[in-house]
Amino acid sequence: MSYSAPVKDMRFVLEQVSGLDDVNKLPGYEDATTDIVAAVLEEAGKFAGEVLAPLNWAGDQEGAKWSEDGVTTPAGWKEAYQQFSEAGWNSLAFDTDFGGQGMPGLLSAAVQEMWHSSNMAFGLCPLLTQGAVHAINSHASDALKDAYLEKMISGEWTGTMNLTEPQAGSDLAAVRSRAEPNGDHYLISGQKIFITYGDHDLTENTIHLVLARTPDAPAGVKGISLFVCPKFLLNADGTPGERNDARCVSIEHKLGIHASPTCVMSFGDNGGAVGYLVGEENRGLMYMFTMMNEARLAVGIEGYAMGEMAYQRASAFAKDRKQGPVLLGSGNEGEGIINHPDVRRNLMTMRSQVEAARVMAYDCAAAFDFASKHTDDDVRARFDRRGALLTPIVKGWSTEVGVDICSLGMQVHGGMGFIEETGAAQYLRDVRITPIYEGTTGIQANDLVGRKTQYDGGQGIEELLADMRDTQAALADSGDEHCKYAAPVLGRHIDMIAGASRQILSEENPVLNAAIANDYLMMMGYATGCWAMARSVLAVQSEQDDDFKALKRATCRFYFDAIAPRAVGHYQALENVNEAHFSIAPELL
Amino acid sequence: MSYSAPVKDMRFVLEQVSGLDDVNKLPGYEDATTDIVAAVLEEAGKFAGEVLAPLNWAGDQEGAKWSEDGVTTPAGWKEAYQQFSEAGWNSLAFDTDFGGQGMPGLLSAAVQEMWHSSNMAFGLCPLLTQGAVHAINSHASDALKDAYLEKMISGEWTGTMNLTEPQAGSDLAAVRSRAEPNGDHYLISGQKIFITYGDHDLTENTIHLVLARTPDAPAGVKGISLFVCPKFLLNADGTPGERNDARCVSIEHKLGIHASPTCVMSFGDNGGAVGYLVGEENRGLMYMFTMMNEARLAVGIEGYAMGEMAYQRASAFAKDRKQGPVLLGSGNEGEGIINHPDVRRNLMTMRSQVEAARVMAYDCAAAFDFASKHTDDDVRARFDRRGALLTPIVKGWSTEVGVDICSLGMQVHGGMGFIEETGAAQYLRDVRITPIYEGTTGIQANDLVGRKTQYDGGQGIEELLADMRDTQAALADSGDEHCKYAAPVLGRHIDMIAGASRQILSEENPVLNAAIANDYLMMMGYATGCWAMARSVLAVQSEQDDDFKALKRATCRFYFDAIAPRAVGHYQALENVNEAHFSIAPELL
Repeated sequence: MSYSAPVKDMRFVLEQVSGLDDVNKLPGYEDATTDIVAAVLEEAGKFAGEVLAPLNWAGDQEGAKWSEDGVTTPAGWKEAYQQFSEAGWNSLAFDTDFGGQGMPGLLSAAVQEMWHSSNMAFGLCPLLTQGAVHAINSHASDALKDAYLEKMISGEWTGTMNLTEPQAGSDLAAVRSRAEPNGDHYLISGQKIFITYGDHDLTENTIHLVLARTPDAPAGVKGISLFVCPKFLLNADGTPGERNDARCVSIEHKLGIHASPTCVMSFGDNGGAVGYLVGEENRGLMYMFTMMNEARLAVGIEGYAMGEMAYQRASAFAKDRKQGPVLLGSGNEGEGIINHPDVRRNLMTMRSQVEAARVMAYDCAAAFDFASKHTDDDVRARFDRRGALLTPIVKGWSTEVGVDICSLGMQVHGGMGFIEETGAAQYLRDVRITPIYEGTTGIQANDLVGRKTQYDGGQGIEELLADMRDTQAALADSGDEHCKYAAPVLGRHIDMIAGASRQILSEENPVLNAAIANDYLMMMGYATGCWAMARSVLAVQSEQDDDFKALKRATCRFYFDAIAPRAVGHYQALENVNEAHFSIAPELL
Repeated sequence: MSYSAPVKDMRFVLEQVSGLDDVNKLPGYEDATTDIVAAVLEEAGKFAGEVLAPLNWAGDQEGAKWSEDGVTTPAGWKEAYQQFSEAGWNSLAFDTDFGGQGMPGLLSAAVQEMWHSSNMAFGLCPLLTQGAVHAINSHASDALKDAYLEKMISGEWTGTMNLTEPQAGSDLAAVRSRAEPNGDHYLISGQKIFITYGDHDLTENTIHLVLARTPDAPAGVKGISLFVCPKFLLNADGTPGERNDARCVSIEHKLGIHASPTCVMSFGDNGGAVGYLVGEENRGLMYMFTMMNEARLAVGIEGYAMGEMAYQRASAFAKDRKQGPVLLGSGNEGEGIINHPDVRRNLMTMRSQVEAARVMAYDCAAAFDFASKHTDDDVRARFDRRGALLTPIVKGWSTEVGVDICSLGMQVHGGMGFIEETGAAQYLRDVRITPIYEGTTGIQANDLVGRKTQYDGGQGIEELLADMRDTQAALADSGDEHCKYAAPVLGRHIDMIAGASRQILSEENPVLNAAIANDYLMMMGYATGCWAMARSVLAVQSEQDDDFKALKRATCRFYFDAIAPRAVGHYQALENVNEAHFSIAPELL
């Protein structure tokens, strides 16, 4: 199935809703003009549609393959990756110091969406490299930066993140991998699991970032250090030389993303893998946290990006497939099932949530741009809070909703959807990892309730509510009937956010706050989605394209009427939380 | 993973909630005493746990295989099927005329739940045979009954249902297969798709029921006839003889139920397959409809049965898996993640919906028992309406919720859930077909709004509401605090059902009723689930087992507090339905 990048909607969100103009005014982002951004989106859309999308299904069926000599990616993968890095896509949003193009994260979010929509298993490779680059760039010595960053930014080498161990899962306090000092480096040993693109044949070197403990490190999270551990050690001239003692010993047999190798990595089977300390000892977890929001935003983008692709396929099928007399449409015989009201409603359910999630993700990316580049400390701090608050919502809600959307996309196909060759099932298989990795939805919810609401004293929430109230006032003051309709809908969701946050801030029993975290997150998702669509309906007033305007208005109206009410179920559930729900001894369950 | 049949909860529902005592009083069901039913459940649970469950994962991985000589099932399948039929499981709920054991559908529902929980791909084979037996038994000549029923009821032969054609999908009006009269039989030609167990190696014969058109048949649904078309024609002595001209030409590569062959069947490639008319010409679709409610109930059972299995696995994992400090539990280190409030809540979300769905399915099965066996015409008619009303809710809601539950079961496993060998992903892959086949959720919703609400003038709904109000009164009058708590919760859901049904009955625009059908169905599911749990909390007052009592009360309370509110989102969505949602030309979508 071809992928058609929704450039028109992306540009609408970037330019009219999420503040590209203001991002363009930030120091360092002067090149990110509307014209340049539009040109980049057009080119990226072509690459995604012409190079990545055609590899998606075949890559899933062939899958990555493991042998003693290393992991091989599916046919065509290597050539596509070479084209990808040679065209400069890998370096788009990195700082210019080591060859990056210095484009804002806001643009990068839109471009990443295209990689994930067209081929999520491929898109994961640059996503992981991005995390490793940022870790090195933010915390490593100049020597390490000089040795690794240029090639990683260009895409000639890829990066990986080695956090999880079999016994530890999400609990990094339990990390056991060891790092023994040995001259100018350390010798690393231990096993890591779930390492995305931990080994592959796309590039001549792979740079692992590894969490491990030095011999005298304190227990728990305060004793974890971060190391750079290349697959091939570098020669004096900087080229890859001797093989390091780090190997992929197997890859996982997974529900989806078959073309993305998920590796079990073994470090130090032959004496120890050479690793170079990033920053200082025992600060590894803190370094990881500085990247975590960005990685989580990226996974949130994956969630709705797969939803976009599922929508495109379902919509195409529903226009083409004829079955039974239809209630909508012209009344002629032989019209597609898209003219069944229930099918149309399924498509609107998919489309409206993708559009809301897109605004939320771009808002989050823009917030990080302001937080890193704005000249005013207070503004930076405010946007840092906003980005931090939106991150678990984007990661948690957009991936949960992404799973629902891909499942609904299968449903639109009827029996054909369950047949693998149709292609709709792959999206569900692929997207299903997104609410799990980079912190499960439960972990996002815990982050939202704890770090982003309670520990912050509600400041981030209050700032969000103030912005939402401004939107509500603008809607109510507008002469536009579509805006006027949205005002009280948004008002109800503002009240829910305020009420739930008050409940959390006043609740003294941590069990009850932990218990409602998931409902709080989902309620916040539907409610900030409502805000996203409210701003969209405001912004579209000045749109010149009548078709786009009508479509955006119908999609927003559908969101307000049919999707936003889902917040209520979650809101009532969190209001109803009670210790009786936990009164049963676990062995009875 | 082993399967432990929830016999205790099944017995509670059968005996205390869904009226086994009254079913036992129906003529013909005198043998279905509490003791007999309990003994059958114990034995069935053993068979499911010891024979079927161990084949589930290996069957998925090996899958059914096609060759020119026919379809082969995975290793162990044939032996298990022989044990299954020899133990009499196939004949449990068939009338005694041709060797059935004459047990009520209510007991059969519980036993079927076990087959599907332990091995859904296996359970599909007897499910299809059941449909074919009922078609023949209800509508075929004595000669056909004599020739086929005994072996099909014993399980020596299996049955299939050949409805779908590639161009027709769910629209049976478009069926094109032909049936030419030829002496005492017809010659059938045409292609059928999605034929479950259309070919296999489990038995010496397979009896296809096929929809086809005779030469002079009127167009559309009124020109479809039903035929019996055996894989092997019968010799004079009734044994299988000559191969009929009906072949499986390929099997589908599916997301799940890999061990269940989904066949493309070709009839008449060599002149015509011999078929015998069931009943009269042109009445085939009506004959199919008489079986449809039962088949849909069976698929609804599949949905929550898979949810039960997903729950059992997730619960076992969450008790065993240690990760991070937990808020619940004894405060000792190293306690399972089941002591994280969010994980506990996921498990309660799974468990409470499975228990509600179980009551709804057993209620539906009991209604059919009363509708077929009660001596009073009015009572029969009333229960026929009740069964007909509950069927699309059980089929639609329990399968949609079944998908959610299996997805949540994966989620509880974290990253391990995405690894196929863990086994949790298979449940999601398998259950995902249940909202599609035997009529998609959209078709169920259409049935609920049209045939079961509008065309019935709301009679079935009014009867349901009257029963729900009786329960509400009993809860309010009870001295039990748990019951008193439930009364107003149930009251709110009664009001939603009443309001939504009024809206449907008064709406004159068929587009709007078709558009809200899905939300109406889902609201009805959560609301009748609330009634199911309300009756459970009433009934459990007299329970002697303190652990069971406490667990049932906590599960019901959780359903009332955290699950039932989901009805509100759907209710508001249907209240908000508006023509603006359909104002966009389909080519813009």
